[in-house]
Amino acid sequence: MASTTNAYAAHAPKSPLERTTVERREVGEFDVLIDVRYAGICHSDIHQVDEGWGEAIFPMVPGHEIAGVVSEVGSSVTGFRVGDRVGVGCMVDSCRTCDNCKAGLEQYCTGSGMIGTYNAVGRDGKPTYGGYSQAIVVDENYVVRIPDGLSLDVAAPLLCAGITTYSPLRHFGAGPGKKVAVLGMGGLGHLAVKIAHALGAEVTVLSQSLRKKDDGLRLGADHYRATSDPKTFEELEGTFDIILSTVSAPLDFGAYLKLLKTDGALVNVGLPEEPISLDLFSVINGRRTIAGSLIGGIAETQEMLDFCAEHGFGAEIELIPADRINEAFKRILASDVRYRFVIDASTI
Amino acid sequence: MASTTNAYAAHAPKSPLERTTVERREVGEFDVLIDVRYAGICHSDIHQVDEGWGEAIFPMVPGHEIAGVVSEVGSSVTGFRVGDRVGVGCMVDSCRTCDNCKAGLEQYCTGSGMIGTYNAVGRDGKPTYGGYSQAIVVDENYVVRIPDGLSLDVAAPLLCAGITTYSPLRHFGAGPGKKVAVLGMGGLGHLAVKIAHALGAEVTVLSQSLRKKDDGLRLGADHYRATSDPKTFEELEGTFDIILSTVSAPLDFGAYLKLLKTDGALVNVGLPEEPISLDLFSVINGRRTIAGSLIGGIAETQEMLDFCAEHGFGAEIELIPADRINEAFKRILASDVRYRFVIDASTI
Repeated sequence: MASTTNAYAAHAPKSPLERTTVERREVGEFDVLIDVRYAGICHSDIHQVDEGWGEAIFPMVPGHEIAGVVSEVGSSVTGFRVGDRVGVGCMVDSCRTCDNCKAGLEQYCTGSGMIGTYNAVGRDGKPTYGGYSQAIVVDENYVVRIPDGLSLDVAAPLLCAGITTYSPLRHFGAGPGKKVAVLGMGGLGHLAVKIAHALGAEVTVLSQSLRKKDDGLRLGADHYRATSDPKTFEELEGTFDIILSTVSAPLDFGAYLKLLKTDGALVNVGLPEEPISLDLFSVINGRRTIAGSLIGGIAETQEMLDFCAEHGFGAEIELIPADRINEAFKRILASDVRYRFVIDASTI
Repeated sequence: MASTTNAYAAHAPKSPLERTTVERREVGEFDVLIDVRYAGICHSDIHQVDEGWGEAIFPMVPGHEIAGVVSEVGSSVTGFRVGDRVGVGCMVDSCRTCDNCKAGLEQYCTGSGMIGTYNAVGRDGKPTYGGYSQAIVVDENYVVRIPDGLSLDVAAPLLCAGITTYSPLRHFGAGPGKKVAVLGMGGLGHLAVKIAHALGAEVTVLSQSLRKKDDGLRLGADHYRATSDPKTFEELEGTFDIILSTVSAPLDFGAYLKLLKTDGALVNVGLPEEPISLDLFSVINGRRTIAGSLIGGIAETQEMLDFCAEHGFGAEIELIPADRINEAFKRILASDVRYRFVIDASTI
């Protein structure tokens, strides 16, 4: 039987979120019902409420950094039991039959496309509603286990910010002997620092100012440089194997590409709303690449959670009650958060 | 003792080339003197005469696709003897001590930078003059051997157009089981087709029209599609592992990136004079990359020549006397060449 849960929703583009209720589908044969405990606030939640990436579905219950506890399982569920600590990230389904789905790259599903945790339409033809709510029903194949060593509150942001940075760092080879720059010291950036450091790379934060330098070094950065200082660009020319850009502001890509070694990669996980301008000589010289990466697959998300637990870290968070979501949105836009807001779902 | 050789030079930016003489340095201990037999005309010769890539050195003797015969060797030369059939490409020196030079990536030299065959300043502080001439003196480390099976005239264009396409095709993994698109069917493109086919890839030419389709299929392409036909973009979405762009005209990069598979690479060897515009979502979705590549190293150039000889092909050329160089420049700008002009150096 379908159930009703408390949620926070935007009822129109750019409008504030308000307390409401949404219906969750009956727990199907392969579904788990999750008692949501924490939901991270991702910058992309704001982008989607604001329709910055295109037309969206309203009412919208954002939230794709979900940590909770299983409260019911369908008759054929094999991976989870009631009481298990679990997470749900940016997707709740995909076609499951295309080459990418079969290869564990569900985020690049070429069949139906991945089905977003919210602002999407599920297999049942109904809109999906995300984690700013007290319960969610998800097919077990799109649910991951949160290891015992990780608290649920600091684990929640790993489901998007963590995997979004872990996946490209792994794919593009961050590790011992590699120099990695993390561009931007926000929700994604601070986790990229922790992860790249734990992977064994030499980590440099490139941030607009040195305001968060102490934090950066504490979280594992070896160096911290201000991009507002022209000397940064002179002195670091040809330094990095990988630059992971977590920023969505427009950048001088030519200047950053020069900081790469031969065969280096500038990997974008931040998505500017406007097209960028690029002098192709910046990539031809030094055989450099501009790449992108989108979250990670389900198995890799599990791998990332296990990795974080093994290395003893989650996100740095500011826990808030649900009635401060709109204020949190404003503070994120003002870069005033260290480093991720997490909603206490008991207050929804 | 220094010598004088006949040459064709531009005496000022955008001016026609005229017959003249230039001085070649004395054959040093490690030098070889080469009797130039053929010199290919590369689109970049025109760019440099026109200062399309920035201020240039005049008088300019273009030409970095040089095939000839050794006519004298320095006292310590070990790799070549008088009578050897040899080639010189885009560079005649580099620092030889940086990591890239030591790794055979002299084209990305981070010391002095590679020293161009023309429009550059050599170790002796004097301008370098290229292959539109009857003789050239080059350090033996920057000279390659032209295998017996290759005629010198069709070998000449391999020294730039051949290595510029061979190197990225190898680096980005063209081979059996891979689908490669070659964008542009000109001097570089036609060699890219031959090389990618010989490497075992499935090759598609993407050209503005179907005008050169018969040639493309004859040279080894499996498919030939017009980019002026919107159906090309609909039907080939998600098809290619590699797109090698040989064009220097501005492109809709987003449209081409969509033709790539997940993890596919759009590799640029053509260099537009203006910056390109790029929606980063085009690379984030599908973890695609935009990359570039610049000629190839000396050892790789030798490998490429051996590969072409083994597979029995050189460039498709139109042999011209030197007094038709200016006409050839105009025809290249009008895309009226199949597929490379080569100057018969005996007419210089």
